Amino acid sequence: MAATIRRILKSGKILANHCNVQCRQFAQVSIAGLPSFVKIVEVGPRDGLQNEKEIVPTDVKVEFINRLSDTGLSVIEVTSFVSPKWVPQMSDHKEVLDRIQRKSGVIFSALTPNIQGFQAAVSAKADEVAIFGAASESFSKKNINCSIEESLNRFQQVTQAAKQSNIPVRGYVSCVLGCPYEGDVSPDKVAQVAKRLYDMGCYEISLGDTIGVGTPGQVKQLITSVSKVVPVEKLAIHCHDTYGQALANIFSALQMGVSVVDSSVSGLGGCPYAKGASGNVSTEDVVYLLNGLGIKTGVDVQKLIEAGQFISQSLGQKSGSKVAQAIKSSL
Amino acid sequence: MAATIRRILKSGKILANHCNVQCRQFAQVSIAGLPSFVKIVEVGPRDGLQNEKEIVPTDVKVEFINRLSDTGLSVIEVTSFVSPKWVPQMSDHKEVLDRIQRKSGVIFSALTPNIQGFQAAVSAKADEVAIFGAASESFSKKNINCSIEESLNRFQQVTQAAKQSNIPVRGYVSCVLGCPYEGDVSPDKVAQVAKRLYDMGCYEISLGDTIGVGTPGQVKQLITSVSKVVPVEKLAIHCHDTYGQALANIFSALQMGVSVVDSSVSGLGGCPYAKGASGNVSTEDVVYLLNGLGIKTGVDVQKLIEAGQFISQSLGQKSGSKVAQAIKSSL
Repeated sequence: MAATIRRILKSGKILANHCNVQCRQFAQVSIAGLPSFVKIVEVGPRDGLQNEKEIVPTDVKVEFINRLSDTGLSVIEVTSFVSPKWVPQMSDHKEVLDRIQRKSGVIFSALTPNIQGFQAAVSAKADEVAIFGAASESFSKKNINCSIEESLNRFQQVTQAAKQSNIPVRGYVSCVLGCPYEGDVSPDKVAQVAKRLYDMGCYEISLGDTIGVGTPGQVKQLITSVSKVVPVEKLAIHCHDTYGQALANIFSALQMGVSVVDSSVSGLGGCPYAKGASGNVSTEDVVYLLNGLGIKTGVDVQKLIEAGQFISQSLGQKSGSKVAQAIKSSL
Repeated sequence: MAATIRRILKSGKILANHCNVQCRQFAQVSIAGLPSFVKIVEVGPRDGLQNEKEIVPTDVKVEFINRLSDTGLSVIEVTSFVSPKWVPQMSDHKEVLDRIQRKSGVIFSALTPNIQGFQAAVSAKADEVAIFGAASESFSKKNINCSIEESLNRFQQVTQAAKQSNIPVRGYVSCVLGCPYEGDVSPDKVAQVAKRLYDMGCYEISLGDTIGVGTPGQVKQLITSVSKVVPVEKLAIHCHDTYGQALANIFSALQMGVSVVDSSVSGLGGCPYAKGASGNVSTEDVVYLLNGLGIKTGVDVQKLIEAGQFISQSLGQKSGSKVAQAIKSSL
C-alpha cells in the first residue's frame, strides 16, 4: 500500500497536477494577518485513538507514531495518563512511550489529568504534558467529574511539579464554541479559563471546539476575547469537523494571527457527542490548506498521507481526510 | 423518516443546543466585507443527480424538487437540455419541468449547451437557462468538444435568443482554480472568459472550482482578478469539496463581497475526475456557515435537511452533508 501511494505521489499525472496546484501557490497570496509558519500539533494517537471502540494494539500505535515522527511534525500527542478504568484505550501509555523511536526535533507529549498522571508521564519520559480544562461547568463535571475551579486547582499541582522537573505544560480548554450540555459558551468565560492556565505556567493554550459547532465569526470573537489576556502567539486552535466548519474556522483563526493548529491524521477520532459524526479535523486537509495559503509547516504531505493510510488500513476504516480520499480516488 | 427529523428538529435537546448556537450568532459578528444576504443557487437536481450511476426515476426527481422549493431556496437548477446520448440522467428534462409544482418566488432553471437546448428549455417552460464555459482549453475540448472560443460563439446564439424571449441567462466558468488536464489555471484567463459571458448578456457568472483543488488565497486572487471586469455582485462561487476546502473557500469569497453561492443538498454529485471523492459542497453545510456568520439566506435549514434525507434515502446513500450527519447522529 505504502509503495503504491509512493508511486502515485512521485509520478501520477493527476497527483502532479494537484500537487502543482498546491505548491505553486507559495508566495502568491497576500491575506492580512496570516502567519508565515504554522506549528501543527498532531493529536491522532491520543485524541483520535482514544475514541476507537476496539483496543488498538500497541504495535500498531508504535508504528503509527514512528511514521508520524518521520513526516516533519514537531509535536505528537502520543498517549494519556488517565486511569485505564476510564480510558482503556490508553492503558499502554508507558509501553508506547518506551517503545517509540525518539527523534530529534520531535516532542512526544502526553495528557495528564492530575499529579499522579504527571508523575507517571515523567517516569515514562514524556517530553511534554498537557492538562485538559473546560469553559463549561456542565462539561467539566461530566467529563472530569469536578467543577472548573476544582480542575484548575488540580492543574496547579501539575504545573508546579512540571516547573521543578523542567517539563513544558500545554493547556487545553474544551467547549470554547459550544457545549453539548449548555449550548452557547461565552468567549469571556473561555478567556478567564485560558488566562488561569496561562498564568499557572502553560506555555500554550489550545482552544477546542469540542463538538464542532462553531463558525468563523464566532472564532473571530473568541480569539479577540482570549488574545486580550493571553498573547495570540501562545494560542492554538483545535477544531472538530462535526458540522463541516473546521477548515473555515481554522482559516478564520489564521487571519487573527493564530499560528498553532491541532489536528489528527485521517481525522481519527469521531465526535463522542454525536456517534457516527466526524470529530477531529484531518491533518492532511489542514496541511493542504496551509500549503495553498503559502504558510510553511515543515510537514511532508506525502508522508503524512502514507501514515494516514497505514492507520486507516490498520483500523479497517475509510480515511476521514478528503485530501487522502481524493488522492486515493485519483488512482 | 421526515417525521423523525421533524421531531428532533422541533424538540431534541442536542439539536436545541446546536440550533441555538447557530441562531444566537445573528448580528454578533463583524467581519469586514461580508454580505448581509446570500442567494443560494441549489444545483443538486442537475449537477448532483447527473453524476449518479443509476438513472434516478422522474417521480423521485419531482418530489425532490418540490421539497427543495418548499425550503425558501429561490433558485433551483432542475435539469439540463443536453443530448440524452451524453447525459442519460437528464433525458427526462421536459417531464421534470412539466411535473414539478411551480412556486411563486422560486426560479426553476435548466442548463442549455446550445441553441437547440435553449429552445427545448423554453418550450418546457424553464424560467431561466445556464450556459457552461471553461477557463481551460483542454477541459473545454474534453467536456464540450470544442475550444473556448467556439463555445463562446455557441453561447452567443443562446444569449441573443434569450434576450428576445426575455429569459435570464446564467454563465458558468469551470476549472477556475485548476484543471484536471492542465493543472493551474490563470485568474486572468478566468477573468477573460467571465467578461465575455457577462458582455454577451449573462446576468450572473458562476465561478466553478470543478475539481475542488483551490484554497482560500487562490479564491482571493481569483475574485480580485475577475471583479475588475465583472462587478462582484454579479459573481457566484461554485465550490467542490474534493480536497475539503469548499467552506474555507466560500468564506474567503464572502470576505471579498461575493453574495451568491452554488451548492447541492446532501453534497449530491461526486467528483467525476476522482471517482469516490467528494464533489459539490452541501447546501446544509453552507447554510449552517452563513447562519453562523449572521448572513441571511431565507432558507429553512430544517426543511433543507429533510429534503436532503429524502434524496439520500431514495438513492440509498449516506448524506455528504456533515450537518445532516451530525444531526442524524445526535438522535
